[in-house]
Amino acid sequence: MKIRVFVSLKDGVLDPQGKAVEHALHSLGFEGAADVRISRVVDLQVKADNAEEAKVKGAEMARALLANEVIEDFHVEVAG
Amino acid sequence: MKIRVFVSLKDGVLDPQGKAVEHALHSLGFEGAADVRISRVVDLQVKADNAEEAKVKGAEMARALLANEVIEDFHVEVAG
Repeated sequence: MKIRVFVSLKDGVLDPQGKAVEHALHSLGFEGAADVRISRVVDLQVKADNAEEAKVKGAEMARALLANEVIEDFHVEVAG
Repeated sequence: MKIRVFVSLKDGVLDPQGKAVEHALHSLGFEGAADVRISRVVDLQVKADNAEEAKVKGAEMARALLANEVIEDFHVEVAG
């Protein structure tokens, strides 16, 4: 079963990568660009009998590796 | 207006980062994990009068900076 794990910085956590992209966009003439935040999406196949089990496995993988829960949030979607 | 730019590797392009995550998941006991692919999501504010204009600006930014069109695809969504 295919799942999608969204990993994004928690609100309030500074996003240096986003800031760098924002400055680069400005230097390329995109003055209106603001509040740039970069997130990760991890698509993967998991062995699961149903969507619920797939989501649980995705959350376990996120907690174990894919997300740093000190500064990041994640949510899991079953991509069908 | 808030937009979301999804940037992902084109089909067929090797994803070394995804492979590394896949191996790490296996070493953590998640044997069933397969076909791991990592994508980026860039959330940002743009100055635009309507959704269509916001999407056009997002595509321009993606072509100029956010995506490497040789190996990556992108699509833009207006996040409302």
